[in-house]
Amino acid sequence: MVEGTRTEHLATWAANLRYSDIPKDVVQKTKDFFLDTLGCAIAGRHHPAVNAMARFAVQMGPSNGNSELIDGALKFTTSPAFASLVNGASAHVVEQDDLHNRSIMHPSLYSRKRLISLEATVIFPAALAVAQDLNSSGEEFITACVVGYEVGCRVGEYLGKSHYERFHSTATGGVIGVAATTAHLLKLSPEQTLSAIGTAGTQAAGLWQFLMDATHSKQVHTGKACFDGIFAAYSARDGLLGPRDILEGPKAMGVALVPGDTNPEAIDEKLGVDFEVSRSSFKWHASCRHTHPSVDALLNLMEKNNVGFEDIESVVTRTYQAALNVLGLSGRGETVHQSKFSMGFVLAIAAKKGQAMITDFTENDLNDASLRDFQSRVTMELDEGIDKAFPEKWQGTVIVTCKSGQKFTQSVAFAKGDPELPLTRDEIERKVRALATYGGFTNSSKVDQLIKRAWNLEHENDIRGFVFA
Amino acid sequence: MVEGTRTEHLATWAANLRYSDIPKDVVQKTKDFFLDTLGCAIAGRHHPAVNAMARFAVQMGPSNGNSELIDGALKFTTSPAFASLVNGASAHVVEQDDLHNRSIMHPSLYSRKRLISLEATVIFPAALAVAQDLNSSGEEFITACVVGYEVGCRVGEYLGKSHYERFHSTATGGVIGVAATTAHLLKLSPEQTLSAIGTAGTQAAGLWQFLMDATHSKQVHTGKACFDGIFAAYSARDGLLGPRDILEGPKAMGVALVPGDTNPEAIDEKLGVDFEVSRSSFKWHASCRHTHPSVDALLNLMEKNNVGFEDIESVVTRTYQAALNVLGLSGRGETVHQSKFSMGFVLAIAAKKGQAMITDFTENDLNDASLRDFQSRVTMELDEGIDKAFPEKWQGTVIVTCKSGQKFTQSVAFAKGDPELPLTRDEIERKVRALATYGGFTNSSKVDQLIKRAWNLEHENDIRGFVFA
Repeated sequence: MVEGTRTEHLATWAANLRYSDIPKDVVQKTKDFFLDTLGCAIAGRHHPAVNAMARFAVQMGPSNGNSELIDGALKFTTSPAFASLVNGASAHVVEQDDLHNRSIMHPSLYSRKRLISLEATVIFPAALAVAQDLNSSGEEFITACVVGYEVGCRVGEYLGKSHYERFHSTATGGVIGVAATTAHLLKLSPEQTLSAIGTAGTQAAGLWQFLMDATHSKQVHTGKACFDGIFAAYSARDGLLGPRDILEGPKAMGVALVPGDTNPEAIDEKLGVDFEVSRSSFKWHASCRHTHPSVDALLNLMEKNNVGFEDIESVVTRTYQAALNVLGLSGRGETVHQSKFSMGFVLAIAAKKGQAMITDFTENDLNDASLRDFQSRVTMELDEGIDKAFPEKWQGTVIVTCKSGQKFTQSVAFAKGDPELPLTRDEIERKVRALATYGGFTNSSKVDQLIKRAWNLEHENDIRGFVFA
Repeated sequence: MVEGTRTEHLATWAANLRYSDIPKDVVQKTKDFFLDTLGCAIAGRHHPAVNAMARFAVQMGPSNGNSELIDGALKFTTSPAFASLVNGASAHVVEQDDLHNRSIMHPSLYSRKRLISLEATVIFPAALAVAQDLNSSGEEFITACVVGYEVGCRVGEYLGKSHYERFHSTATGGVIGVAATTAHLLKLSPEQTLSAIGTAGTQAAGLWQFLMDATHSKQVHTGKACFDGIFAAYSARDGLLGPRDILEGPKAMGVALVPGDTNPEAIDEKLGVDFEVSRSSFKWHASCRHTHPSVDALLNLMEKNNVGFEDIESVVTRTYQAALNVLGLSGRGETVHQSKFSMGFVLAIAAKKGQAMITDFTENDLNDASLRDFQSRVTMELDEGIDKAFPEKWQGTVIVTCKSGQKFTQSVAFAKGDPELPLTRDEIERKVRALATYGGFTNSSKVDQLIKRAWNLEHENDIRGFVFA
């Protein structure tokens, strides 16, 4: 292939990447994200949108297949397109997805302006379903995930901020990432991969209108990105030709779906040298991310100084303006969802329970007088130094005054889960267990096995039987 | 339902329309278009894009079902989502689709600026597949088709000219039309229909980039519009909530997918009074539509004056500027496709064969000296009166000089197939037989039966076994 366009360059790289080309730390982080995403998919599986989409899979899809559905209520295996439709929807229910830091952090320093990358939500469910169908090895699976994650993130960054303001870019970049992942697993040539990318891009869709009335399109977008990307790659293999430059062509995504500027260099700059996976963050606490530095600082402070929940008289958190803007808008927190946007309530949960996982926010907690009382004794203050460093660094400082009169201060330089402060394996396992519990996945030995297999992924010869081992 | 928005009004109308509400002439024209579309789907079934999509249906779909695939090579029945995916793609291969006149004709007089409506391509394949699955009656089928055609055309007109310049609006309006059609067949409530429309709209996609390299997205767009619209309606039935105002909301299609002006009144003005079906045209000849008035005039002239192909010395066609612009660009016509854009060659075919159907343009004809000779004796002239009336009227005049020295002139006021000059049943049957022959559908008794059942559609209790009776 003549690598005439950036899109051709991207497709050629995607088709040709080998497992041995991938740095070890990128492999490890890919496995981390895979396990995290599986946990999210299990946690979300009782959402009504997921259930409706599972029923569609039952009615329209085959009665059996090699790919496992996370929604165990209806059926266990189906074809990869339908398994990923449901699992991709389920993975996008709870807000535990990874963030992609560079674009959050550098809206002005970097010309790459995409705000958040949640590509894991689509790449892993699609890759798992296809790999199960094709009986791919663990190495092949990991390689395909790295390919799809990279392609999806880069397309999202190419489309940029003005696109993100109108389109759910997890889906519009994601569908192309899924096509690249699937093409890789199908061992398509660069030319066929280019067709798959083209056919994926001409299907790119997903509007923010659902935010206006809290309807279910969010899950539709990710589930359909999986389905449509798989369609693009399988049909490319079978002779369907996609447009050769769906990114930068005169009638392509960069024109039709981008009212402002694109970032063309994002498509292929440092391809194979930088890996998007390495720049992505985990979300550790289940609360709004703007509360995370303060939660981290408070938990550090309490552990280091042996301070208990009952010992605390008041908390002052010093933070950046963006946090004040978002968290200041939310009230006391009348629902579980809203309560995750109250700095006071989130710190109360963390202080009382020692963590702020998804299972730590419940209906009962909303009526817990001790939490509500603690909440009322938390105040937020702007810290000019912290504000200046944001969004490159998500710093936080807490000042705790104890009932004893003692006073402690603790600062953190990064939020836990950021590339600079990654989660340990043990922490990822804790998170996944919490997600599985939240999703009603009660058989803990199955969760153990799932975790064990994920850590050992590159040595697996067959990743069937993975979800329901 | 409080009919607060235009979208709610449209959804309520779509859910509540009854067969008895539909004027008889609208029923008849719906049947005409249905038969025409079936013919197109048969004609297109050997296209590589259709074959690739059929293979996807085989791999990802069920091994049986109630809905019939037009691509008989691989399998005969499947689930409605997959049957319509393939049939909707196939129906959009040959350029025999209906045009929608008001928007072609009145780009300035009407504020409704959509250029061409090909909604039949998506509505009928989707409606047939779903009706076969649900065992709907002929009356229910016709009603659902009227609903979907109306909704799809109106959404396309709402999105307007600037949308059409960027998006393949047969698909972006079509997916909503399919959702409305399917919702009607599923007997969804107005609220559920609104959800179906919302979920369809947030999936709306289809870029023109494929025109740059003649790739296969055109068929992907219509096939996927069928699939995605069916997904939207079935999942709405099963509890998936779609955005309530996917057309005019602040983050909806009218903002994200329309760089220029929308036409809001198109959504529900004269709903249930005017029917879009009545304003739509058939394409009668297989050539570029700008040749049609001249073909009609020439055939009239030859029949009326008993002039044969061999008698003609020269032809002058007097036409409008837009025809000169389009047809003047094409050369002699080196391929079958190109030859349909040469006025001289098209008139030669019509004069020699007495018609210009899809089967009348062949590779052999390209090398027929008598046709090439005739072609060289045709000239085009601008007619100011005809030009002035365009695009409200597609008029044409031909002046024939015979070898005998005799001279004849014939004018037509409308192109055959326009609402003012509709095809007769006999002509529609001729067209469908030509399309079936082109598609290799050799069993003429099956075609007879298909035609007979289409004309009798409102009396059918079961439209299964329709395609492969």
